[in-house]
Formats: sequence, C-alpha cells, structure tokens
Amino acid sequence: MLDDLRAWLAIARAPGLHAGLVDAGSAAALPQCLLERPAAELQSRGLAAAAIAALRSPDLALLESDLRWLSVPGHRLVTWGADLYPAGLVATADAPLVLYCIGDVALLARPQLAMVGARNPTTVGRETATRFAEHFSRHGLTVTSGLALGIDGASHRGAPRAPGSTIAVLGHGPDQVYPAEHAALAREIAATGLLVSEFPPGTPPRPQHFPRRNRIISGLSLGTLVVEAALHSGSLITARLAAEQGREVFAIPGSIHSPLSRGCHRLIRDGAKLVETADDVLSELAIPAAPAPAAAAEPEATDAQRDFCPRLDKDYEILLDAFGFESASVDTLVARTGFKADVVASMLLILELGERIEQQPGGIFCRRLAGK
Amino acid sequence: MLDDLRAWLAIARAPGLHAGLVDAGSAAALPQCLLERPAAELQSRGLAAAAIAALRSPDLALLESDLRWLSVPGHRLVTWGADLYPAGLVATADAPLVLYCIGDVALLARPQLAMVGARNPTTVGRETATRFAEHFSRHGLTVTSGLALGIDGASHRGAPRAPGSTIAVLGHGPDQVYPAEHAALAREIAATGLLVSEFPPGTPPRPQHFPRRNRIISGLSLGTLVVEAALHSGSLITARLAAEQGREVFAIPGSIHSPLSRGCHRLIRDGAKLVETADDVLSELAIPAAPAPAAAAEPEATDAQRDFCPRLDKDYEILLDAFGFESASVDTLVARTGFKADVVASMLLILELGERIEQQPGGIFCRRLAGK
Repeated sequence: MLDDLRAWLAIARAPGLHAGLVDAGSAAALPQCLLERPAAELQSRGLAAAAIAALRSPDLALLESDLRWLSVPGHRLVTWGADLYPAGLVATADAPLVLYCIGDVALLARPQLAMVGARNPTTVGRETATRFAEHFSRHGLTVTSGLALGIDGASHRGAPRAPGSTIAVLGHGPDQVYPAEHAALAREIAATGLLVSEFPPGTPPRPQHFPRRNRIISGLSLGTLVVEAALHSGSLITARLAAEQGREVFAIPGSIHSPLSRGCHRLIRDGAKLVETADDVLSELAIPAAPAPAAAAEPEATDAQRDFCPRLDKDYEILLDAFGFESASVDTLVARTGFKADVVASMLLILELGERIEQQPGGIFCRRLAGK
Repeated sequence: MLDDLRAWLAIARAPGLHAGLVDAGSAAALPQCLLERPAAELQSRGLAAAAIAALRSPDLALLESDLRWLSVPGHRLVTWGADLYPAGLVATADAPLVLYCIGDVALLARPQLAMVGARNPTTVGRETATRFAEHFSRHGLTVTSGLALGIDGASHRGAPRAPGSTIAVLGHGPDQVYPAEHAALAREIAATGLLVSEFPPGTPPRPQHFPRRNRIISGLSLGTLVVEAALHSGSLITARLAAEQGREVFAIPGSIHSPLSRGCHRLIRDGAKLVETADDVLSELAIPAAPAPAAAAEPEATDAQRDFCPRLDKDYEILLDAFGFESASVDTLVARTGFKADVVASMLLILELGERIEQQPGGIFCRRLAGK
C-alpha cells in the first residue's frame, strides 16, 4: 500500500481524472479509497481506461521521481480537500484533484482576477495590460494568467511583488518552460509569486492542455478580464469558462478597425462588462478603489473631466439654485425661475446627462451631491 | 378668420406647442379649432402664456412673411395629419405640428437612420461616419442628422445622391444657416436631399433648440447610431430620446484612451447595440445587406495600399505598429520604438507626406485608414 503522498501523486498521474469524477465528500480518505476501488466501479463513474490503469498499477519509478521534484525547496503539492486548496476551484465542475505548485502557495487563498488576451497584442494593448495589472495588484487583487506571450506576459509583469503579486497557471508539467521566451519570467514568478499546474513533472505542453489550463485560470478567479483578443481565440474560451463557472467576464473595447478588438466586442455583445478603466473592474467586484493610487494609475481622468464638464452658464446656475435643497417638478422650477417650460425641460435633460441632477418617479427632479 | 394655411403658420409660431398638447385626433379641423379655443381651455391643456397669445392674436405681418418664404420653389410646409407627415414622428410624445421643409419632401416617408456624434471627431471617426453613411444610403436607408460640424457633416456627406440621400434637421429657422461652415453643404442637401425644421423663418440657433431638434432626428428614424461622442454630449441626448421613443440605439466602440469613445461606451453599457460594421446596423434593422455592394463599400486595405502606399521598410512598419490604433506623440513613439527622436520626426514627416499618418493639434499624430 502506498502512503498518502504517493497515493496523491498516483492520482495526479491518472489522465483526465478530476473532482467531478470521484466522491468529493471524503477528501481525507480519498487517495487510498480511490486506489482501492474496483475497476468496474471506477469505470461506471466515467474514468477512462488509461486513468483506471494508472490508479490500479501506479508507475512506482515515476512516483519516486515526482517525490524528488517535491523535495526541492519551494515545490509543493496542494491536494483536494486540503486547507490550501483554493475555494474558487472547489466550486467548479471539473476541478483538478492535485496542484503542483512552485512559490508562494498562500497566494491561492487571495482574491484573484484572471487577465488573458492575445499572444500578439498591439503595443497599446500590452501597455494597458501592464498598467491595469499593476493597479489591481496595488489594490490587493492577485493577477492570474497563463504565462503565454503577449497579454499574459504583460499582465504578469505588471503585477508588482506586493501585495497582490501574480499566479501563472501552466499547460505542462511544473518542471517545463513554455514558451522559451518566458523562462526568465517564470523564474521570477516562482521566486516572488506562484506557478501552478495540474500536470505532473515531465508533461510537455500540448494543444489540448491549454483549454484545461484555462478552466483553472478562470476557476481560481473572481472574474476574467480579456484585454485584446481575436475572434476564435483561446482567450474567448477562458471567458466562456468563466461565465460557465458563474464568474464575471470583463472586456476592453477598442477600434472597430483592430482585429484584436473583435473578440472583446463579441464578449461585450454576449454580456461581458465593458471596461474602460481598472477601477471599473474593482467597483464591479466591490473592491474599494483607493482614491490616491487610483488617480496615479489613471492620470487621464482629471484632464478628461476638465474636457467634459463645461462651466455652466448663468441660466443653469439659476435653475440649479431653484431646487434649493429639495426635489422639484418642472412646473415648480418654471414658477421659480420664470423660464419657459420647454427651456427648463431641455436644461434638465442636459443637467441630468451631466449627472448634476437625477430624475425620480413622477416627473420629480433632484440635485445630485457634488463629487458623485 | 385666417385660412387653413395661415392658421397652420400661426400655430407654428406658438412657442412650445406640440402634438401632445392638442387633440391630435382632429387633424383636418385642427388649425381652425386651435385658434378659436378659449384661452382658459388652452391654459388647462398646458400651453404656455406666450403660446396662447400667439394663437389668440397671430402676428399677421409675420404670417405674410412666412407665406412669402413658402412661395419659393422647393419650400414646403408639412403639417400634422397630412399624408406627407412622417409616421415616425406621429408615434412620438411631443411631435411638432408643422415642419418647414426645403427639398425632396418624399424622403420623409423613407426608412431613416439617424447618425450623430462629436463636433470635433477624430479623423478615423469622421471617415467611419462617411463610409457607414455611404453604405446605408446604398442600401436604401436615408441618413438623417443635424448638420452640425464633425460627425453630422461627415454623415450627410457620405450619403450619396441616390437612392437613400440625406435629411438634415435644423435647430433654427429654415432660412438660417448654422454653422456658417456648412452653408455649401446645406445648399447641396436642399438641392439633392431635404432640410427640415420646426422653427419658423427668422428663428436664430439657440442652445435650447438643439435638444428639441434632436427629438425630431431620432423620431424620424428607425434607430440612432452614435459614431463618436464625449460623455455629457448632445449626441447622448439624441440617443436617450431614441430609446425613449422605442427606437434602436447603436454605438461604435473605440479606444479606452479616446475621450470621444467614452459616450459610446456608456451607451453600450446602458444597452445600446455595439456596432463594428455598417452591416451590423442593417441586420439589426432587418434590412438586407447585399453582399456585393457591401464589399465594394468596404474596400479595406488591399487595393488602396497598392495604389497609394509605397512599400515601407521594416523600420517604418515598426513605427506604424507603435501607433496601435491610437494617436501618439513623438515622445510616446520614441519610447515604444527605441528609435532616436530626430529619426522618428523625419520618419513621421515622410509618413505624413505619404498620407499614412496625420498630424493633429498638440503635436499628436495618428494613422490614417488605408485608402482614404
């Protein structure tokens, strides 16, 4: 009989096995039970023949090799049912039973935002990813992505060392590096953030691994933000998985002439939240946006306000004064100002669009507090 | 007693009067009845004192002057209840009782799309408006707008002579020209399309006229397309009116860094349809998009690039890529490319001469769409 650790390692090497296929209630007894179950029962639960074979006759040499990988400082195994196992994944339909981790496993418990996008983004898209990731991290949101070229890399790089840091989920074994261009980035994340994989050491990157990797990225996270994406791209798969997992989907719009905006535009049409600023995401997730860092991260807000809020002319001031500290009907305002009704109505519409006043049921208007 | 025509002209000069304030069922008898109603009854219906005075004691000299305006060939009065009165306006809450028209009044009966947007659009926004308007017009959709600078003008200009043509709705009397820069455009629309106003001859443009003008633009149209708009801009008023009138609202997304996309993004968040192509609008309005003309209307890069653009060497491609789909300063381009500032400046000059980019106020450069 294998000890628990070896039993988990054997489970991790059963291809296609996930929490949805086992009795998830009995986590403590799970590894031993699973290895002892009759093949027929495993088959009836939907396990593939290769998975059953891996459970019935574990490759002991591979397990010893996995143990050697685990003995390296900073390497950890996080198993289904353990305290460190992330709650976000528990809630998904086909959660991995084992996560190979390198780095700060405490990050798994942090609130996370997935950031994904094109491998060949525009310069502006790349800059946006980095800037947004930095902003999220500064507000305590850990940025989770897939270590791919382009938006993934820019997002990982934008999340500074503290406090949010960054998690990279891999589509291959934790001992592999892919893409080669990100070897240094992977080392950096291992040292200051966290690398996560459900694939055992020695597993090479394979196309079919990446959609599985994507469900972990979205499943770990409160929401998924797509920065730039073509139609029919992997980022849209991650976004769809996030929606299926009941998480928020966010997308950044762009020029109708940019093929890398098409995927985001499709997501927005399908119900994703349109995002203009990093604070849009924070407020949707009900994460407080500290005013000072927010202003630093979004320098254009102030200029923009200068542009959009024209100084109101005297007539508008008279109309606003006519409210006093009350709400008022058009008739009341007409009586108080002496302006014509249609003039008042037009002015109210403009003030409403300028968020200076607000319409209430019954044709009553009231002033809004400044600063809203 | 005034004859019917003079009675309608008197009604048109009663400020703030609209179909919602009169008994709209009795169109044929309306003009005479309205002039004969007791002042108390008119007041109880909500007519302002100035409107009642104008109905009880019409300024006969003004009516004769209006008749002289009407005697000019091409000038027409379209009154509430007449066959020519547009059905789209009948369905609105506060329709004008009288429309002063110059040009082809038959256009009032055509399916129309309102196109509105910023008075100071980006080059790309202006080009998009013209290209989309041309496409709509080719598919038999009349483009209706407000003759303002920027997107309005570009939309009017994009709609060719036939078959869709264009309607400009004015915020002043039909004998006025505003803005002065559009005098030639107004003459052209009068000759080949249609100018429409609810304001009598001699009425100058006033700020409070434009929201009223906007309700006619949206009310005439199946839907309103906002091409580029700042937050708190008049285009958003038109879009809001369209939604209140039960019409479709369409908006074109853009860069999150462009203040002129903010208004469109807000509309999309509030439920406007996100539009990437002119065909998106046609299909939403269930207007067949003939494939061949559609392709012709969207010549895209290929032919145009062959004709206008010399083959660029790799450094130029890098510099153009550094724009993304944004405008950028020399400093930004230097930072993104790593080229020296004087090299970037020389390259920009060459690209500008080749009409690949364009300089905007403030030392900002932006790419031009191929083929324009």
